[in-house]
Amino acid sequence: MNRTELAALIRRKRSLLCVGLDTEEHLVPAHFRAESHPVRAFNEAIVEATHDVAVAYKLNLAFYEALGMEGWADLEATVAYIRSRGDLFIIADAKRGDIGNTARKYAEAFFDKLGVDAVTIAPYMGRDSVAPFLGHAGKWAIVLGVTSNEGAQDFQFLPVDGGSERLFERVMAKTGEWGTLDDTMFVVGATRAEVLARARALAPDHFFLVPGVGAQGGDLNAVLDAGLTEDGGLLINSSRGIIYAGKDQDAIPAARRAAKELREAMAAKLAARGVL
Amino acid sequence: MNRTELAALIRRKRSLLCVGLDTEEHLVPAHFRAESHPVRAFNEAIVEATHDVAVAYKLNLAFYEALGMEGWADLEATVAYIRSRGDLFIIADAKRGDIGNTARKYAEAFFDKLGVDAVTIAPYMGRDSVAPFLGHAGKWAIVLGVTSNEGAQDFQFLPVDGGSERLFERVMAKTGEWGTLDDTMFVVGATRAEVLARARALAPDHFFLVPGVGAQGGDLNAVLDAGLTEDGGLLINSSRGIIYAGKDQDAIPAARRAAKELREAMAAKLAARGVL
Repeated sequence: MNRTELAALIRRKRSLLCVGLDTEEHLVPAHFRAESHPVRAFNEAIVEATHDVAVAYKLNLAFYEALGMEGWADLEATVAYIRSRGDLFIIADAKRGDIGNTARKYAEAFFDKLGVDAVTIAPYMGRDSVAPFLGHAGKWAIVLGVTSNEGAQDFQFLPVDGGSERLFERVMAKTGEWGTLDDTMFVVGATRAEVLARARALAPDHFFLVPGVGAQGGDLNAVLDAGLTEDGGLLINSSRGIIYAGKDQDAIPAARRAAKELREAMAAKLAARGVL
Repeated sequence: MNRTELAALIRRKRSLLCVGLDTEEHLVPAHFRAESHPVRAFNEAIVEATHDVAVAYKLNLAFYEALGMEGWADLEATVAYIRSRGDLFIIADAKRGDIGNTARKYAEAFFDKLGVDAVTIAPYMGRDSVAPFLGHAGKWAIVLGVTSNEGAQDFQFLPVDGGSERLFERVMAKTGEWGTLDDTMFVVGATRAEVLARARALAPDHFFLVPGVGAQGGDLNAVLDAGLTEDGGLLINSSRGIIYAGKDQDAIPAARRAAKELREAMAAKLAARGVL
């Protein structure tokens, strides 16, 4: 899905919502665990209940790899199901990053074989680890800029090169030069609005994938105030806050309520800021 | 496999050799492509031909994920086959790195489900992305310190904190504090001996996984001179230089010759340095 199509989808759905499918078999309601493929069945029910208010789904690879081959089958089936529900942007949250020939294989794994729209990428290994994900029409590298976890403090905020520039700022500036607005997004954590505002100043027109709203403590309105662009410019992820919003028979209705609630707040701000 | 066992294995086999199974279906000889599982059959033949001179095997996840579910099945089968051939150290070259709850899932995926001894880890997200891989008896996090690719220059060599310390030095110093000599190794590239010497000065007793000997241009003797410790302290990887050493019917014999040649050079240096 290219940038024009993504912006149009955001306007049409009045939503920036990305639903994170961090699904764990032991956490899905019992009536799904009775199915032959519990994770897949649960994911399909979540997608069915939320796809009219979501623009994107993010699949966290760790949760599927922990199930081995079966997990990979769940992943492929879930991607196929999301595709069957219409125009939706699909992200493999994989945080890959490796030397050129390996990065090319990962691009093949995610863009061609799995068929998602975007992959999250770790920048530590530099240009040849990012470049193989760029320049595929309608496909995106979502590079880790500044993350929402506590460990972000360990390296991402280090001043570099003897000045006041911090590592995440250098990473965003450099990787922003390697790609374009049409193939590069950044992961920008939601837990500190001033950091998000700084990232937006560095990359005024790039799309950001914003995790950390909800379970990780980020505030939705602060994120929207700091991050919105003319095109929306944000995909705001909620995982546990949606998929585990309710229990047992209420799990799916509760997921829909949680997703709709986030969407309503997004729609109000999108309208107020003139994006719609 | 714990550190004592790994050091004993190195002495017994007079080898530091890690064989990298970066296997691509279209590059394996035709007689393997005729099998029902070409990648698996080729890997098994390579392991059969090299396991007496190798101490470790490294499976590059990208090459398996590019085949989807079938690739994951090849991965599981290859790990099981290596295990069946005796004491060997198995590395999942996955370069994972994510927030705590996701990192825990990756540790589960690799240590428990796939059953390897070690996983390579990207450090950008900091402590809570590394810690879940630590403290599992006999299991290892191999953290990216300084890599062998051109893109290593983009961020890893940046001076940090207003001094002369470079990012990779900070990463090695910090992550070295999080774990111990028994659960933490570092990836240290082989392409520049002076960088390897600097890494060894920073982490005198840690094991290093050294990629980049062979296809990437690293010189084996320079690596051994700069990196050897009393326990050996190195796992030196060769992937394409072994698995694609020969063609057609000669592929497996050539792989064995290439592996033995590397082992002989290692054994000579291990003896000269008094490690054996």
